Amino acid sequence: MKKIDEKALIDIVGERNIKTDPSDLYVYGSDSSVHHAMPWAIVRPENTEQVQKIMTYANENLIPVITRGGGSGMCGQTVPIQGGIILDMKGMNKILEINLEDVYCRVQPGVVDDDLNLALKPYGVFYPPTPASSRIATIGGEIGNNASGVRSVKYGATRDAVLGMKVVLPNGDLASLGAHTRVEASGYQLHKLMVGSEGTLGVVVEATLSFVPIPEFRCMGVSNFNSLKDAGEAIGAIMASGATPSMLELVDSVAIKAVNKTMDLGLKEVAAALIFEADGMVKEAVDYEIEKMKKVCLQHRGEDIYSSYDPKERAKIFLGRKKLFPALSKYDDNLASTSLADDMAVPYSKMAEMAGKIHEIAKANDIVMTAYGHCGSGCMHTKILMDTKRKDQWASAKKAITQVYDYVRSVNGTTSAEHGIGLSKAESFKEEKSDSLVVLSAIKKALDPNNILNPGKLMQAPEDWVTATNLRYSVNS
Amino acid sequence: MKKIDEKALIDIVGERNIKTDPSDLYVYGSDSSVHHAMPWAIVRPENTEQVQKIMTYANENLIPVITRGGGSGMCGQTVPIQGGIILDMKGMNKILEINLEDVYCRVQPGVVDDDLNLALKPYGVFYPPTPASSRIATIGGEIGNNASGVRSVKYGATRDAVLGMKVVLPNGDLASLGAHTRVEASGYQLHKLMVGSEGTLGVVVEATLSFVPIPEFRCMGVSNFNSLKDAGEAIGAIMASGATPSMLELVDSVAIKAVNKTMDLGLKEVAAALIFEADGMVKEAVDYEIEKMKKVCLQHRGEDIYSSYDPKERAKIFLGRKKLFPALSKYDDNLASTSLADDMAVPYSKMAEMAGKIHEIAKANDIVMTAYGHCGSGCMHTKILMDTKRKDQWASAKKAITQVYDYVRSVNGTTSAEHGIGLSKAESFKEEKSDSLVVLSAIKKALDPNNILNPGKLMQAPEDWVTATNLRYSVNS
Repeated sequence: MKKIDEKALIDIVGERNIKTDPSDLYVYGSDSSVHHAMPWAIVRPENTEQVQKIMTYANENLIPVITRGGGSGMCGQTVPIQGGIILDMKGMNKILEINLEDVYCRVQPGVVDDDLNLALKPYGVFYPPTPASSRIATIGGEIGNNASGVRSVKYGATRDAVLGMKVVLPNGDLASLGAHTRVEASGYQLHKLMVGSEGTLGVVVEATLSFVPIPEFRCMGVSNFNSLKDAGEAIGAIMASGATPSMLELVDSVAIKAVNKTMDLGLKEVAAALIFEADGMVKEAVDYEIEKMKKVCLQHRGEDIYSSYDPKERAKIFLGRKKLFPALSKYDDNLASTSLADDMAVPYSKMAEMAGKIHEIAKANDIVMTAYGHCGSGCMHTKILMDTKRKDQWASAKKAITQVYDYVRSVNGTTSAEHGIGLSKAESFKEEKSDSLVVLSAIKKALDPNNILNPGKLMQAPEDWVTATNLRYSVNS
Repeated sequence: MKKIDEKALIDIVGERNIKTDPSDLYVYGSDSSVHHAMPWAIVRPENTEQVQKIMTYANENLIPVITRGGGSGMCGQTVPIQGGIILDMKGMNKILEINLEDVYCRVQPGVVDDDLNLALKPYGVFYPPTPASSRIATIGGEIGNNASGVRSVKYGATRDAVLGMKVVLPNGDLASLGAHTRVEASGYQLHKLMVGSEGTLGVVVEATLSFVPIPEFRCMGVSNFNSLKDAGEAIGAIMASGATPSMLELVDSVAIKAVNKTMDLGLKEVAAALIFEADGMVKEAVDYEIEKMKKVCLQHRGEDIYSSYDPKERAKIFLGRKKLFPALSKYDDNLASTSLADDMAVPYSKMAEMAGKIHEIAKANDIVMTAYGHCGSGCMHTKILMDTKRKDQWASAKKAITQVYDYVRSVNGTTSAEHGIGLSKAESFKEEKSDSLVVLSAIKKALDPNNILNPGKLMQAPEDWVTATNLRYSVNS
């Protein structure tokens, strides 16, 4: 492990904001992905000036810097594959301004998504790209990933909500990007480039975000299906009908079984279920949307179709979907739920095929995969449930993932819908973006000539994700 | 004028697709801005392969290439300040695909905005970032500018509607950027970087755009105000009220006078008027929005408040706003309406001040300026009405523009809302983006090492816009 100049860092942030103890380093060496690597230090800046000084020091000494928020990234975005400093942004967690008249808020990157929405709620507004990890995920991390979530089908992704930002560049300079207005055409949309750049181009120290009014009415509906194909086709039909759902989620039989096993919800063990929502200020408009969606479900052989405005009923409908991720860990005592092939986006017309293909590929490779997600925005999630102790299962997983993403690209989809690329999805990313890799690298080099910001990710990621880093699991030889 | 190898270009596109006659060159040397410069040739490619060959040739021979659509840019974006080839994209004007199920369309860059919407209409959908120049503007040009228009307050700008694209890079390579799905988190958002890059980073040869359902109901309203301040404050109050107008426009007394003079509409000659619209699938929801907005207008001393669902009535309400731009040319026989200080964006809370400031600055500089625009998206338009034959008026205009944009920046606004930067607004752009100019230049150099794509614009623009090129006007010495 390369020595870093602890004293220099202490001079910048103070002793309380540095950790070098191996047990701390170990914890910060992982995120929610399968990857692990040891950093050299964890540094927690308190303000922009400190971030600038850290970057200046790191740039001069060619030390990698990996920006980290909640560490809930699923693909290794914050795993320090080349060592270096973990730049822990949780110390910069203030909400700086909520401007109702100008319809924006300014926040520091360490603000947790749920905390932002808690602060906005009394004003009758909310920040909509919220992912499912909102209890943990920070705004800075969401920007790095271009995160989105259950309401993105109607309200868009992070990239749509970011009006502007302040970033510290790899050389320590501070730059203001974007603006504070709804529309802006002042040259290169650098703030939009930063969104989804996974911490490789700059360190966000402040973000200007838009928000929207909290709707008066929300109505949630659910429909069971006896075939995944019917459910998938219903998704496309809903989107093509002109309906504007505020949520449109798919869960498959694997997911339903897992949820039943862990939560005793007594869900009917069907092939698939759709959960959909409409929202608005006027009940008649919401009725219109819900009826439209229910009709489409019926036309696609949906059963047990039900909807409710009541908050308790809505929570009940959504509970299975909400607890899905942890439930999968309990699907089978011998299987761990790993963040692999965790997300992808495909056109609506390919949604049914994609779900079916996931099951088919899983079966062929002797692993279990589940298909669920924010299908209204084209986003499909899976998890690979596997015996992580078995080396052959990792080989199977690797094969399955390659097959899944080959298929995603073949149907005009894209490697990631909302979780980003990091390390785990880099293989498919590099295939998908093969004709722009040179441009990506040129832009990276232009902003970060010394390649210190989160090196070894995206187009720089190693060929084989299984061996890219240590794995977070014990694998028998 | 440098010689270009006409034969080489004829070999690529055929003789019918090249113009070198001085009268043609003269016409293509201007856009809707005040600028003019002579290109060396106009080349009209028919397909992507031809674009690639042209770029390869130009890159090898260090010949500037200026991509042009409808030539309706207002700031000199398509004026060939360093000479070179005008790449006329009007020959690539096919709509390639309208995919209702997957909710996107694919178009060539030369498709005129109105033609796209004409093609979408039978399917009950529309492309919403449409600017006022939609009869002329092409999709490619709109992408270059990050154009927006009357409905952007609700539906967003071009950057929000572009899902992906194919671009020819300065070296002739073809790259596919972005995706075809609602959400996408596959690394650097290069397609979003291309939007608003004003033809300096790549040549768009295909665009994947989203569309939205045409609402069943549209209701337009209007309110007069006896002070610009009241109207401006009503705008902010409407946006803060949680209303979601599909249109929110301001016209001031200068604009009203001009319209009355040319069109005999008999508009009441008040200080300002607001025109607002709500749309949706359910009438009760639209009623709700319109009533909300009317109430706010009343609270801000609005008068003659009126609204209608009827298409004829709505057209009548909007007619003054629609014909404003040409009407300004007739405001005074001695004054020409020039595209200067043509747009800016300011926070809603500064809208009233901005409008007042424009009048104040105009008066102080002995020119006439009007304040109007898509104020619901924060966009303020002006025009400078001046005697273009008088040299001192150009000096006055220059001073006024500097003052206007100094003020825009001082209230946290941004140099352009939707018209872009080009040459005319470069002075303010460079001030506004002073801390990221190095990054902008680094990105430009990374993609275009030989600086052939639309050189001399944005951060490369000359210091003084008045003398940057010849002017499109005869100015007495």
